[in-house]
Amino acid sequence: MPMTTPSLSPLLSMTERAMQDVNAIIVDRMQSEIELIPTLAGHLVASGGKRVRPMLTLAGAMMAGGKTDMAAKLAASVEFIHTATLLHDDVIDESGLRRGKATANAIWGNEASVLVGDFLFARAFELMVETGNISVLGKLAAAAARITEGEISQMLIAGKPDTVVEDYLSVIIGKTAELFAAAAETGAMVAGGDARLSGMMREYGMELGIAFQIADDALDYQADQSTLGKTVGDDFAEGKTTLPVMIAFAEGTSEERNFWQRTLGEGQIEDGDLAEAQHLLMRHDAIGRTLEKARHHAGRAADQLAELPGSEIRDALMEAAGFAASRAA
Amino acid sequence: MPMTTPSLSPLLSMTERAMQDVNAIIVDRMQSEIELIPTLAGHLVASGGKRVRPMLTLAGAMMAGGKTDMAAKLAASVEFIHTATLLHDDVIDESGLRRGKATANAIWGNEASVLVGDFLFARAFELMVETGNISVLGKLAAAAARITEGEISQMLIAGKPDTVVEDYLSVIIGKTAELFAAAAETGAMVAGGDARLSGMMREYGMELGIAFQIADDALDYQADQSTLGKTVGDDFAEGKTTLPVMIAFAEGTSEERNFWQRTLGEGQIEDGDLAEAQHLLMRHDAIGRTLEKARHHAGRAADQLAELPGSEIRDALMEAAGFAASRAA
Repeated sequence: MPMTTPSLSPLLSMTERAMQDVNAIIVDRMQSEIELIPTLAGHLVASGGKRVRPMLTLAGAMMAGGKTDMAAKLAASVEFIHTATLLHDDVIDESGLRRGKATANAIWGNEASVLVGDFLFARAFELMVETGNISVLGKLAAAAARITEGEISQMLIAGKPDTVVEDYLSVIIGKTAELFAAAAETGAMVAGGDARLSGMMREYGMELGIAFQIADDALDYQADQSTLGKTVGDDFAEGKTTLPVMIAFAEGTSEERNFWQRTLGEGQIEDGDLAEAQHLLMRHDAIGRTLEKARHHAGRAADQLAELPGSEIRDALMEAAGFAASRAA
Repeated sequence: MPMTTPSLSPLLSMTERAMQDVNAIIVDRMQSEIELIPTLAGHLVASGGKRVRPMLTLAGAMMAGGKTDMAAKLAASVEFIHTATLLHDDVIDESGLRRGKATANAIWGNEASVLVGDFLFARAFELMVETGNISVLGKLAAAAARITEGEISQMLIAGKPDTVVEDYLSVIIGKTAELFAAAAETGAMVAGGDARLSGMMREYGMELGIAFQIADDALDYQADQSTLGKTVGDDFAEGKTTLPVMIAFAEGTSEERNFWQRTLGEGQIEDGDLAEAQHLLMRHDAIGRTLEKARHHAGRAADQLAELPGSEIRDALMEAAGFAASRAA
């Protein structure tokens, strides 16, 4: 029997109906008398990310065998937190393009992007309050603090290709995996799941988030813009220190290290440097080895759920973990 | 008997001991493994604002006759929300000076200021969660959303001296008075105050916040840097539309209107323009009339508490309202 490529489809179809509720809540709750707010927020929301985080919240509720009504509000809240960080990221990175579209800051300016991000962040907490579950609020508030710690750490290791893997992992856990973890965990909590289940969902989300971000960092040097919806080489241009570069730097000749130092380290990037960077990554099989690491964490995510009784939603989540690490294929 | 100038001293001395707890919580909860966070946050926290907002939360609890333990956490949370907005404001305004010191963004850059602001905002919600009172969380989350709406509205009326007073009031209610209102209201709530008292405290905080911001907008054209701790003419340089200018513009000759249009409207500011702006404001008694409006709202704040039984804390709050509008003296 041939191996089939893991797919996100089972999870997508199981959560499809509830995601329509989530999307309706998102559109409803980004409204404001200040027209600029829904206009700007809608630009990002309509640009159609995969909405993996709210899907995890719904899946957490389904794993707990609970209704998705409250989970849908929570899922919208999680997506608002994520959207707020994207708006602030684009200001920080001075990005011009996200998901293949002009960024909000490029169109409406940095001020509006910072403030609408703050607005969505506040709205996220209003939505959480409506679930009436204060433990859930505590989890997501802590995750929100950890996200910013991750982003600040990322800023501090920028331009430093000699960063150790431990520090890199700490950055991606903060900026990505903590919200994945809290999204899955609180979905189970709000639907009445017990501590064991919500703890397992947390670990699943954590490992999935790590796998997802590592794969993303590999794809940034590989995918073309039409498939990934972002510019290839963004991380390179912004001097972000990611695993592929760390691998190539660690094993590079002194000439290669000088190249990384000049480009990623000092931001002196000339025509042809991205192609040279991709060439060096290939020389050290850095993309392949990065994706191998992503697969390792995806496997750990699936392992979290392996001992639970089989069910359609459990199997869909296990397959989604495989998908997160194989997007490059 | 001579009229005495209203003073903040009674409120300061009554809340002094509890404010020490608040300050300890603030320092404790801005800590992070990422050293840059307490360094940057500490820069702003140490620069010593008056901490009117947390004081209102404590006063709200005292009005309810309750303990200030939970209120102290809430007060720290309120100050974190305020500090977060200051950090983001300075990025947005590209300010170089706040309270007489270099701003965080001038020292550590915009990225760090945006992210540490986000961190403090998240920490604020973590602190609120610890009070265990979900109604309080709802009030403060709503206030946080309204703050950003106020800031965005302020951005939208910038450079427009023909703004109507109603729109100006809507801006300052959002950016300032909503948090004053929520601070005072939730202080009463968390200490067990009933709906009538917390409603009165809310209205008191709202009118106090309006008075405070109107007076601030007058002082921006009047105070010297050493007393106000901010640069005179900041609002003018940033093109902010505030009441003094709106008054002078509404009654100005066409030549005067052209002046406001060139400077505040188009940002073409030359040497001597600030002095000319101050001259025009004086010509229309715009500062005096702005402060009169501040006194009107301060009076309404005091009126909220007038029918309550007299007490030391009530009297201190009524006097503080008078102080808010007379800071120019």
